[in-house]
Amino acid sequence: MIGKTATGFGVTRRILGIDPGSRKTGYGLVEVRGSKVVHVDNGVIVVNVKDSIPLRLRQICEGLQDIIREFRPDEVAVESVFLGKNVSSALKLGQARGVALFAAAHFNLTVTEYAPTEVKRAVVGTGRAEKKQVQEMVRILLGLPEVPQEDAADALAVAIAGGLANPLLSQLTTTRPKRRRKNG
Amino acid sequence: MIGKTATGFGVTRRILGIDPGSRKTGYGLVEVRGSKVVHVDNGVIVVNVKDSIPLRLRQICEGLQDIIREFRPDEVAVESVFLGKNVSSALKLGQARGVALFAAAHFNLTVTEYAPTEVKRAVVGTGRAEKKQVQEMVRILLGLPEVPQEDAADALAVAIAGGLANPLLSQLTTTRPKRRRKNG
Repeated sequence: MIGKTATGFGVTRRILGIDPGSRKTGYGLVEVRGSKVVHVDNGVIVVNVKDSIPLRLRQICEGLQDIIREFRPDEVAVESVFLGKNVSSALKLGQARGVALFAAAHFNLTVTEYAPTEVKRAVVGTGRAEKKQVQEMVRILLGLPEVPQEDAADALAVAIAGGLANPLLSQLTTTRPKRRRKNG
Repeated sequence: MIGKTATGFGVTRRILGIDPGSRKTGYGLVEVRGSKVVHVDNGVIVVNVKDSIPLRLRQICEGLQDIIREFRPDEVAVESVFLGKNVSSALKLGQARGVALFAAAHFNLTVTEYAPTEVKRAVVGTGRAEKKQVQEMVRILLGLPEVPQEDAADALAVAIAGGLANPLLSQLTTTRPKRRRKNG
């Protein structure tokens, strides 16, 4: 467990959030230290649109693999896909998402999917938050000087959701009530 | 050019056809020797449906990478996607197709896309052939004792289309008339 420190609240976990896209793939790394979620890094992989589709997919996949090698996350978090009506967009997104999931699986990392409402609830406290609110809360929670690029902010948001999904931390927060209607 | 033999008609080319799918990914290898298209290998990568999606994508990607390492094709051929109305299917197919295209790009192989009608025309001689006809013609053209598994046969068909797309060979065959209506 190189680089890991045990705290009173448990072992530090590093989570890589990924927001895959055929042109821009956002990534965001956070570390859960006890009850705190700390920013590690974020950025966007932008493909060269002059390149063929296979070469673009290579840029996404190998870009993410480089990030995983450098930052050694313990797990990966992605948002579940909201499917519109456009099959062509779904195919393109699928291709980018496929290589992103493969990049994680290549390193034996567990990938957890979070619904958009779960991400919003984890970051803002309500599943109905606006995109702008989510981005601003990402900035505040992680103490960043400014809101990161859109895709990177989305990736950080899902990484935060992954961090708060820790069973122990869930006890410390009220932002992720589960199946309230059925149980309550 | 290890393993390559020049002939009166040009250098031998080895083409890997891939038919990606979220459950079954067919592959077929042919070699173009002069005016002949010769069978090399074919098969189907079947994912373990008990595994998570990222692990399934890893099986597809690394399965294809193993095949490329073993058979060292010169190029890759895939059929262009016919998009139905189902966005969920398009996303799943996209994910499988994404890792298949990445597997090729990882080895710097050029990937060429062929429309279904081009594949049918190359194999059967008409773009309106039935699926069964295509599979039977694949068997006959390659001198196989029986029709391979469906996905493998489809992959061989697109590999044959890739083989016949050789500019020199196109002069020797009448199976791929280009833009006949506009030019004729």
